Amino acid sequence: MDFNEKSLILHEEKVGKIQVASKVTIQNREDLSLAYTPGVAEPCRQIHKNKEDVYKYTAKGNLVAVVTDGTAVLGLGDIGPEAAMPVMEGKAILFKEFANVDAFPICLDTKDVDEIVKTVKMIAPTFGGINLEDISAPRCFQIEERLKADLDIPIFHDDQHGTAIVTIAGIINALKLTNKTIEDVSIVINGSGAAGVAIAKMLKNMNPKDMLLCDSKGIVYAGNPGNNEYKEEVAQITNKYNKKGTLKDAMVDSDIFIGVSAPEVVTEEMVKSMKEDAIIFAMANPIPEIMPDLALKAGAKVVGSGRSDFPNQINNLLAFPGIFRGALDVRAREINEEMKLAAAYAIADIIDESQLKADYVIPEVFDVRVVDKVAAAVSKAAKDTGVASIQL
Amino acid sequence: MDFNEKSLILHEEKVGKIQVASKVTIQNREDLSLAYTPGVAEPCRQIHKNKEDVYKYTAKGNLVAVVTDGTAVLGLGDIGPEAAMPVMEGKAILFKEFANVDAFPICLDTKDVDEIVKTVKMIAPTFGGINLEDISAPRCFQIEERLKADLDIPIFHDDQHGTAIVTIAGIINALKLTNKTIEDVSIVINGSGAAGVAIAKMLKNMNPKDMLLCDSKGIVYAGNPGNNEYKEEVAQITNKYNKKGTLKDAMVDSDIFIGVSAPEVVTEEMVKSMKEDAIIFAMANPIPEIMPDLALKAGAKVVGSGRSDFPNQINNLLAFPGIFRGALDVRAREINEEMKLAAAYAIADIIDESQLKADYVIPEVFDVRVVDKVAAAVSKAAKDTGVASIQL
Repeated sequence: MDFNEKSLILHEEKVGKIQVASKVTIQNREDLSLAYTPGVAEPCRQIHKNKEDVYKYTAKGNLVAVVTDGTAVLGLGDIGPEAAMPVMEGKAILFKEFANVDAFPICLDTKDVDEIVKTVKMIAPTFGGINLEDISAPRCFQIEERLKADLDIPIFHDDQHGTAIVTIAGIINALKLTNKTIEDVSIVINGSGAAGVAIAKMLKNMNPKDMLLCDSKGIVYAGNPGNNEYKEEVAQITNKYNKKGTLKDAMVDSDIFIGVSAPEVVTEEMVKSMKEDAIIFAMANPIPEIMPDLALKAGAKVVGSGRSDFPNQINNLLAFPGIFRGALDVRAREINEEMKLAAAYAIADIIDESQLKADYVIPEVFDVRVVDKVAAAVSKAAKDTGVASIQL
Repeated sequence: MDFNEKSLILHEEKVGKIQVASKVTIQNREDLSLAYTPGVAEPCRQIHKNKEDVYKYTAKGNLVAVVTDGTAVLGLGDIGPEAAMPVMEGKAILFKEFANVDAFPICLDTKDVDEIVKTVKMIAPTFGGINLEDISAPRCFQIEERLKADLDIPIFHDDQHGTAIVTIAGIINALKLTNKTIEDVSIVINGSGAAGVAIAKMLKNMNPKDMLLCDSKGIVYAGNPGNNEYKEEVAQITNKYNKKGTLKDAMVDSDIFIGVSAPEVVTEEMVKSMKEDAIIFAMANPIPEIMPDLALKAGAKVVGSGRSDFPNQINNLLAFPGIFRGALDVRAREINEEMKLAAAYAIADIIDESQLKADYVIPEVFDVRVVDKVAAAVSKAAKDTGVASIQL
C-alpha cells in the first residue's frame, strides 16, 4: 500500500482525527444536576459577577482555536476551508499530544480580511488563544495585527512565528559551532511570504551585521514601487546599503542563507560564493532550495531543511505546542517578541555544547524535553515583560 | 457542603468540563507523517476535488456547534457569552455522553442578529450541525430561520424544538390515558417565548380542536397592535374564534394546560375550571406554574413539570442527543417538522401501553433506550422526506 493510500485509510477509518470529550462523568441524576441544570447555574453566576472566573470554571483557558481560511494550505495553496480541515485537525491533535492544549479547528467560509477579523473576535469568548494557520500573505499580516490590537488573548500565526522561532534556534546553535556572533554575520533570506518576513523581523531584533531579503524578482529594497505595505516595511529593516540585484548577487560573501521559497533555486556555485563556514537552512518543501548533501559538498558547514530524512529538520512542532502551553499557563495577554525569542533560545539550549555538531543543531521533534523547556521560558518571558495575568 | 458549592468545586477541579481529544496516536515519525505532513496532504487533495469527501476524511460530520450569545441562559437571563460557557460545555458533554456527538461551545461576543447569523455561516465549514442555545426570543426565531435558509446542515434551536418535542411526547401518552384524541381537545399554552411558540407551531400540525396562547397580557389574538411579527404569526395559527381575555378565562373548559412561563400563575381553581381528566404540563423552572401535587389535588389527571423530583419530568435531554444523532447519521440537510414529530412519537413509544400510567407518561432521562429509538426515527423521517444525503 502506498503512503497516500495509508493516510487516506487512517483518516477514513476514524472519520477524522479529533473528538470532543468530557472531563466529568454523567451517570446518574446527581452527576447531571451538578454538571448541568440546576447546578451549572452557580458557576454561571460567579462568572457573571466576575468575568475572569471564566478561567476558573470553564475550559476557556486551555482552548485554542486553530483558524484558517484555507488559502495557503501546506504546498497545496488556496484549496478552501473544507479541504483545509485535515491539516487543522492534525494541528489540533499535535497541540493535545505534545502540550495538552485543547485545540479546535475553525475553518472559515471567507477570504475577506475584515470578515475573518470580525468572525474571530465574535467567537473569542470561548477561547484562551488563537492560532492562525495557512492564511496567505500579505493578508495574514493584517489579520494578525488587527486581532492582536483588538483581543487580549494570545494571537499567533504559526506559519510566520513558529517557523521563525525554530529557524533562529538553529541559527543560534550553528553560530556557536562556527564561532561567529550574530553581529558579525550577513544573512540572506529567500522568500517574502509569511515565514520570510517573520524571520527577517525576528532576526532584526538580534542585530545582525546586514540582512538581505529576496523574492522572486531579486533583492527587496526600500522605495521599490512594486513593494506592498509589508514588503516596504521589511525593506526598511533590511538591506542597509540599499543593494539591488539577484539572489545570486545577494549570496556573495554572505554567512547565512535561509530559504523559505522554492525548490532548487540555489546552486553549488552560489554556496561556494558565500563566506567560509556557511550556514544553509533550505526549507522549501518537499524539495529544498538546494539538497542538503549538495550544499555540504559545496562547502557549507551547517545545513538544515524541512525534511525529516536529513539532519537538522526545521519543524514548527518544536515551537507551537510549548509556546501556547507557556502562554496559557500564565494567561498571557499576548505572545510578544521577548516570548518568541525566549522560545528560540530554549529550543537551542536543549542541545548542550558537548553534543552540538554540524548535523545536530536542532533537537529531534520527539525530544520530550522540548515542550516543557519552551513553555517554562515563554511563561517566564511573559512574566518578565508584564503580559502575564497570573504568576505561577 | 451545599449544592452550589459542590458544583463550583466540580467545575474548578477539572477547569471546565470539555476537552479536545485525538482519535489517533502520534508516537513516532510515521504516525506524524500520516496524520500530519506530508501524509495529510492526500485527504486535503481529495476534499479539494470533491467537497463532500470532507464527511469521509474529517470529523465535520459528527461535530455540532453549540452556539449562544448568552442572552437567555437558564433562568439567569442575559448574562453574556463568558458566563454562558458552563451551560454550553454542559450541553456539549451531554451530546457526547448520550449520543456520541462531538459538540463544541461557541459563545458569541454579540447580540446582533445579523452578526450572529454571519458568524455562524462563516464557521460552518467545520461543523456538521448547529445547535442554537439560550438565545432570547424573538431574536432566536429570526436567527434560526435565516440560518436554515442559508446553510445545508441541520440547524436546531433546542429551547424551542427540544422542549416542544418532549412536551408533545408527554401529551401523546397523556391523551392515550385519558381516551381523548388531539382533534378533540382544547389546549392552552402560557408563555410566548421560544418554547411556547415552538410548542404551538408543532401542535398546530397535529390539528387540535382549538389552541390558545397566552402571554403576560392574556390571550394572544390576531391583529393585536402589540404583536410582533412572531406573535402575530402564532396568533394566526391559534385562537380560531379570536377570543380575548386572561389566562384564567382561557383555561375554562380546556383539556390541556402547557406552562412555559412563570411560577405559580395557575391556581387550583383554574385547574378545576378545566374539562374532566385535565392534562397539566407546568414547566416553569424551578417553581412550576402550579406545583404538581396541587394540580393533582385540584383534579388534574396527568401532571408533568420540569422538575426531577416529581414524576413526568419534561427534559430536553430526551430529545436533542437522539435528534442530532439521527440527523447526522444520514447527513440530513435540515431538521424538518416530520423529523421532530417522529422524535416526539419515538419518545412516547418508549413506554408501552401496559406500563403507561398517570405518573409515567414520559420516560426517565437515563432510559438507555431513548437515544437509539429517537435517532432511528429521525433518520427514517429524514429519508422519507428526502432530506437525507446518505442512506443507511
